Amino acid sequence: MKLLLIQGANMEYLGRRQPELYGTTTAKELDALIRRRARELGVSVEIFYTNIEGEAVSAIYKADRARFDGLLFNPAGFLHAGYALRDCLRSIAMPAIEIHMTNIEKRGFGSITAAAAVGMIAGFGTDSYLLALEAMVARLRSAAV
Amino acid sequence: MKLLLIQGANMEYLGRRQPELYGTTTAKELDALIRRRARELGVSVEIFYTNIEGEAVSAIYKADRARFDGLLFNPAGFLHAGYALRDCLRSIAMPAIEIHMTNIEKRGFGSITAAAAVGMIAGFGTDSYLLALEAMVARLRSAAV
Amino acid sequence: MKLLLIQGANMEYLGRRQPELYGTTTAKELDALIRRRARELGVSVEIFYTNIEGEAVSAIYKADRARFDGLLFNPAGFLHAGYALRDCLRSIAMPAIEIHMTNIEKRGFGSITAAAAVGMIAGFGTDSYLLALEAMVARLRSAAV
Amino acid sequence: MKLLLIQGANMEYLGRRQPELYGTTTAKELDALIRRRARELGVSVEIFYTNIEGEAVSAIYKADRARFDGLLFNPAGFLHAGYALRDCLRSIAMPAIEIHMTNIEKRGFGSITAAAAVGMIAGFGTDSYLLALEAMVARLRSAAV
Amino acid sequence: MKLLLIQGANMEYLGRRQPELYGTTTAKELDALIRRRARELGVSVEIFYTNIEGEAVSAIYKADRARFDGLLFNPAGFLHAGYALRDCLRSIAMPAIEIHMTNIEKRGFGSITAAAAVGMIAGFGTDSYLLALEAMVARLRSAAV
Amino acid sequence: MKLLLIQGANMEYLGRRQPELYGTTTAKELDALIRRRARELGVSVEIFYTNIEGEAVSAIYKADRARFDGLLFNPAGFLHAGYALRDCLRSIAMPAIEIHMTNIEKRGFGSITAAAAVGMIAGFGTDSYLLALEAMVARLRSAAV
Amino acid sequence: MKLLLIQGANMEYLGRRQPELYGTTTAKELDALIRRRARELGVSVEIFYTNIEGEAVSAIYKADRARFDGLLFNPAGFLHAGYALRDCLRSIAMPAIEIHMTNIEKRGFGSITAAAAVGMIAGFGTDSYLLALEAMVARLRSAAV
Amino acid sequence: MKLLLIQGANMEYLGRRQPELYGTTTAKELDALIRRRARELGVSVEIFYTNIEGEAVSAIYKADRARFDGLLFNPAGFLHAGYALRDCLRSIAMPAIEIHMTNIEKRGFGSITAAAAVGMIAGFGTDSYLLALEAMVARLRSAAV
Amino acid sequence: MKLLLIQGANMEYLGRRQPELYGTTTAKELDALIRRRARELGVSVEIFYTNIEGEAVSAIYKADRARFDGLLFNPAGFLHAGYALRDCLRSIAMPAIEIHMTNIEKRGFGSITAAAAVGMIAGFGTDSYLLALEAMVARLRSAAV
Amino acid sequence: MKLLLIQGANMEYLGRRQPELYGTTTAKELDALIRRRARELGVSVEIFYTNIEGEAVSAIYKADRARFDGLLFNPAGFLHAGYALRDCLRSIAMPAIEIHMTNIEKRGFGSITAAAAVGMIAGFGTDSYLLALEAMVARLRSAAV
Amino acid sequence: MKLLLIQGANMEYLGRRQPELYGTTTAKELDALIRRRARELGVSVEIFYTNIEGEAVSAIYKADRARFDGLLFNPAGFLHAGYALRDCLRSIAMPAIEIHMTNIEKRGFGSITAAAAVGMIAGFGTDSYLLALEAMVARLRSAAV
Amino acid sequence: MKLLLIQGANMEYLGRRQPELYGTTTAKELDALIRRRARELGVSVEIFYTNIEGEAVSAIYKADRARFDGLLFNPAGFLHAGYALRDCLRSIAMPAIEIHMTNIEKRGFGSITAAAAVGMIAGFGTDSYLLALEAMVARLRSAAV
Repeated sequence: MKLLLIQGANMEYLGRRQPELYGTTTAKELDALIRRRARELGVSVEIFYTNIEGEAVSAIYKADRARFDGLLFNPAGFLHAGYALRDCLRSIAMPAIEIHMTNIEKRGFGSITAAAAVGMIAGFGTDSYLLALEAMVARLRSAAV
Repeated sequence: MKLLLIQGANMEYLGRRQPELYGTTTAKELDALIRRRARELGVSVEIFYTNIEGEAVSAIYKADRARFDGLLFNPAGFLHAGYALRDCLRSIAMPAIEIHMTNIEKRGFGSITAAAAVGMIAGFGTDSYLLALEAMVARLRSAAV
Repeated sequence: MKLLLIQGANMEYLGRRQPELYGTTTAKELDALIRRRARELGVSVEIFYTNIEGEAVSAIYKADRARFDGLLFNPAGFLHAGYALRDCLRSIAMPAIEIHMTNIEKRGFGSITAAAAVGMIAGFGTDSYLLALEAMVARLRSAAV
Repeated sequence: MKLLLIQGANMEYLGRRQPELYGTTTAKELDALIRRRARELGVSVEIFYTNIEGEAVSAIYKADRARFDGLLFNPAGFLHAGYALRDCLRSIAMPAIEIHMTNIEKRGFGSITAAAAVGMIAGFGTDSYLLALEAMVARLRSAAV
Repeated sequence: MKLLLIQGANMEYLGRRQPELYGTTTAKELDALIRRRARELGVSVEIFYTNIEGEAVSAIYKADRARFDGLLFNPAGFLHAGYALRDCLRSIAMPAIEIHMTNIEKRGFGSITAAAAVGMIAGFGTDSYLLALEAMVARLRSAAV
Repeated sequence: MKLLLIQGANMEYLGRRQPELYGTTTAKELDALIRRRARELGVSVEIFYTNIEGEAVSAIYKADRARFDGLLFNPAGFLHAGYALRDCLRSIAMPAIEIHMTNIEKRGFGSITAAAAVGMIAGFGTDSYLLALEAMVARLRSAAV
Repeated sequence: MKLLLIQGANMEYLGRRQPELYGTTTAKELDALIRRRARELGVSVEIFYTNIEGEAVSAIYKADRARFDGLLFNPAGFLHAGYALRDCLRSIAMPAIEIHMTNIEKRGFGSITAAAAVGMIAGFGTDSYLLALEAMVARLRSAAV
Repeated sequence: MKLLLIQGANMEYLGRRQPELYGTTTAKELDALIRRRARELGVSVEIFYTNIEGEAVSAIYKADRARFDGLLFNPAGFLHAGYALRDCLRSIAMPAIEIHMTNIEKRGFGSITAAAAVGMIAGFGTDSYLLALEAMVARLRSAAV
Repeated sequence: MKLLLIQGANMEYLGRRQPELYGTTTAKELDALIRRRARELGVSVEIFYTNIEGEAVSAIYKADRARFDGLLFNPAGFLHAGYALRDCLRSIAMPAIEIHMTNIEKRGFGSITAAAAVGMIAGFGTDSYLLALEAMVARLRSAAV
Repeated sequence: MKLLLIQGANMEYLGRRQPELYGTTTAKELDALIRRRARELGVSVEIFYTNIEGEAVSAIYKADRARFDGLLFNPAGFLHAGYALRDCLRSIAMPAIEIHMTNIEKRGFGSITAAAAVGMIAGFGTDSYLLALEAMVARLRSAAV
Repeated sequence: MKLLLIQGANMEYLGRRQPELYGTTTAKELDALIRRRARELGVSVEIFYTNIEGEAVSAIYKADRARFDGLLFNPAGFLHAGYALRDCLRSIAMPAIEIHMTNIEKRGFGSITAAAAVGMIAGFGTDSYLLALEAMVARLRSAAV
Repeated sequence: MKLLLIQGANMEYLGRRQPELYGTTTAKELDALIRRRARELGVSVEIFYTNIEGEAVSAIYKADRARFDGLLFNPAGFLHAGYALRDCLRSIAMPAIEIHMTNIEKRGFGSITAAAAVGMIAGFGTDSYLLALEAMVARLRSAAV
């Protein structure tokens, strides 16, 4: 079971970026947390950081062609205007789960891409990623039965 | 660790209600799934179904006075106009996690109450409850350290 | 053929409430008119007054479980924010007809619940109820053929 | 007792026009149904089909001058922008009842003309016309007392 | 100097139509008032009543081709949605003055066509027509110098 | 002179609820303050707390039938969507005064119910209740003259 | 018969101010035109220029107290936010006519004050003033009969 | 293969109407261009000019009954409020292509009718008609295979 | 204890201005009522009427510099666009209470300035002033303890 | 004559992407169709696919500097937020034609970029490209005369 | 080279007014800073503080008549509703530069007057004035070449 | 002192791009002007042109990590939808100043990114850059004291 995780615009600066909102865990440390949980769940995760929406789109199509099983993504800076990303999510075969570290509703945001995802997990800091990983694996396993 | 789960308006009809959206698991079966996972996680969950928003508010205050540790809630029919529920969530000491079985964004809805929750899990059917349970336990345990 | 009639918030005060809009027929007198016409049409009608939206929802589910054939309802005070009631109407098997004594369009109102009903009859005072009763019976009889 | 029925834009194509919405009864067949019920109720109905809003307005003024007793009308294609028709309804002496075969609220429409009518009946297919006929006769007879 | 006066939808019913707004002067009497003032000013006025916006448009083009000098018009029922009339006013060579018997601003209306006119006179009952006639003559005479 | 005071949703938690906004006076203490001032003014006050809008509506009708002289109410959690309560206020004979402990305008809120009240007093903490009591007594006494 | 003419903000600069819109006639020259026509009509006009809305309000109250017969006013720069002026117009006994040199609708403006006037004349340059003068005199004379 | 071309409100004045937007080709000259291209493509085109929306609707139903193969239409003045025309397009069997001589988006307009067409060609002056003719023929021929 | 009372635009005409809304008490009589109550409460009140928003602003700054203890103000005509007044209220040290004689919510107005006040009292006619005086004195005395 | 064709975000997945909307022709097959028609028309077309809006902008500037004669572009995923692309279209010398395979109006979309194009062709599947090619060649040839 | 600087509503209170936003430099101290820099640049600056928008308008017209070379202005409290000021800026010959001490965009404001200025400098505290002075001088000198 | 200057989408075409708005100075010439002034002020400026928003984001993070002292940026084509850029500005340590050559308010635009900047300078053509440079240096030097 192969998964792709897209980290959207500004996620590369995690740990330095508005730590009162996003905490002090760095991108590197978060990657390690995710990979460890992936190993426990018996799945592999490829992680891709990009500030360019179109690069995220290209990476998703590449993974879809390579028959990845699922997509996890934090749209981050693409939250507000990521229409191309949203259309991409509607074009692929694999399911996608949207992740946010903060409760975007509390901050007054709606997400453009959420409507094209299977579901959304928001507000649990780095735990949002681990919960999304579990949700994806549960979904893929029950679909595989 | 004691948790309260509020099931909002129309949830009593789960299993019969728009099964193409909500599946065929009944309210009773869902309760059993939740209690089992709660036992595995070593916590107790009180489950309360109501179609009356003010009853939900009263139940939450009662639990907060009784020093429950956390609140899980699916606003369901209170999603659109649950302002009193939202104000209640802002008045209590225990953290609250909002649950939706469907991806409300895909259905074009925003949630009035979400802004007063710690976070939201939406779109995973009955799994949404189990993920929320885990998220709450993780949060309470890390806060307790 | 068994029907349920829900009288929403403030209908209990019919006859005293803004008589320039709603006339001077009291709730009791209206009930008698409705029951008489029901008898003529050979159907039974249960009438339920409530100021609490969630009680209306519960009563409707109870009737749907008891296999009532149709629902007549005047949302009255639930007109503006009766989202839970609307979702309930979408979850039941029996058809529902919305009733208004006044022409709500003339008063500048839209009805939240109307979108979940089979149809609407508005503006004919107490006759609105009698017309709705006929419409329901005609519909059920033609469906029964 | 003389009534005028106006059938607005596109009603001429009834039976061929989006039958999943409007059914397969043709305009001619509907006219026969209406005339039969009118005879039973002891009233005469003149039926006028037009795709031109201003023709509807002229026909209504002509009937009002000729002292018709009531107006039934399905604005149909004039629903969205029939402001001249609405002003006409406000200028005449006879009462008007608005008819829709479908539940326009469910389709997300509001009616421009409804605010100038006595009341509205929507969602009962061809029965909408028969119910409106009854409502008009009841109203005129009780006013005549 | 030849002028065309267009009387829009519902103006044919002047004198009977909402007399609390429009007074009791009939269309015929108003025509006489206008023609008398036109004679005093030494101009001829052709008056055209129609409930059909497209007929107004055709009449205006016909007059423009016949080299009329000016257009006076009361959009009346075309006030709210007379887009075709507005585009027509923008296509002709002769100047147009918009007339309203009532103060439309007080009634909460904006006029779609006003943006395509030279100017507007509103709120003076039948005097609105006479003032517009003078304004047009003054304009044409000063332009003719 | 008999008055009813309705305390809307979440008021039961006064003293614990967002004390930075509402202060630390508890509901019980506030009741004592109100009753003392009522005694000084020579009137009796019945106080009713509820989280259920429809219960507030029922209580108000009961008091109106029992010929209470005036209604004081803090809509609290019903502020945003209390349409049924608003319609109730329009249906009763006794005058109603709306009370807010905080300046709701400063918090960016409008009140749905305020349009159906005689007047509003907002922003003076527990003093808002005492001022409303005085305003009501002054009004009733001057009307009684 | 005594009239007051208020020239609103920026009118003092007439003749220099955006001459492509307002022409090259100066404020002084306009005053002369108005006074000449007033003499012909046998009325006196007091003309008051001000850039300060409150000064306009005070001048109007002073004239109303002094029993002036009518008010002509060009709100000019008070067009967009002249709410105090609008309330003033609603408080006085004498009728008011609003004047604009340009067709404000063509420029995409609505007028805040127009709703409180008897009527409006817009788009005829300096002729707008003369037409308004006539309209006022006609109105006052017919009312005086 | 028989096609109908509808030329909406104001198109009769082509060549004289705002030539900076629509060019100087007259309606007659445009008709000749269209008929010549139709002959080259081996199809017949009936061309109908009207300023009355309801006439366009009636003409379209007549053609649909007569089993025309396709509809080309320039809504022109019906662009903004042609709801009846839009509903008509949804009721017919033949496909419809919308034509505009100008780029309506550049002028800030949306088209009410476009949503009911197969497609739209806008911005190419008289060429828009010729391209639409080709697009229709290609579509009908490939469907006929 | 020294207070300033600002009476905004149009208040000078109290007693003559829309008496169905504002009653027949004149400005002078109101001043006397206020001063009498102020004497009873042992405070002095300076009263300032102005139709010019900027004069109100200047007067408030002058009082703030002179260390007045509190500000009472009826924005009246400044209600809708008094942004400069609102910013002024945010810049001063003394607390401000907003007063309205009518229930502005019932009239469909929101107040621009209310957000910058301590609280608001609306709907009690001349009593609104006396209640505000009491509220201010109570607030200043409890703050002084 | 040299043309550039830009294929915007998600077009690379043509044939796999929502085939119910976009058909099963792949990007490669579409390219062949376009090149064949270009050869027939005697022009050369460079085709550039990109998911990155800024890359499209850079490619357009490069072509404009290299004196390409015209631009064809399908904004695809840049439809909703392609403001930079729109500004780019306004900055170049060569004309641009916008292409959509689907009727975007039917899908409820407006195009940000369309306002900066010469014209738009939408709704004809792969034929949209061929029609745009013809429209461009016709335009360039008539301009070249 | 003679410049006028307008300081809008509430600027007189600089130094005392919300110092967390505007700093503690007083109006007097700011004037000294500005005059010093003006001397260095070899220009004279007249500074005018007013809380009354119409006084600002009058002062600007007076300066324009006196052939001042440029206008610097901080609309301050006139930011939100300074329509008369905006129209004034459009009527004068000298260029105007708008100044804000704070970044108004960060505070969620747009400026009504900015559209009538040459440019805007916002967010640099008292430096905003000095930069605007330089910008004006540079502009006037390059225009003078 | 090291500064970064970001030139957003379409700035590479300066001098050729809409010269009536942006002038004829080319990007190269502007760079020279900026570097010269930077040298005079004793600071170094790195200039980066990009049409890709995500590249701008990456460049800014790189500079922030390399401890640049300040950021100057012209969002240009990112003005309307540069949400990722805005979030980036909120995540970095160095201050940012937004630059526009034109007065964007006059063109009816608001800037998405401005809310995350220290301040904005708009409307002075190439001088906007030089003023921003000075403003940044002044800010950094006063902060360094």
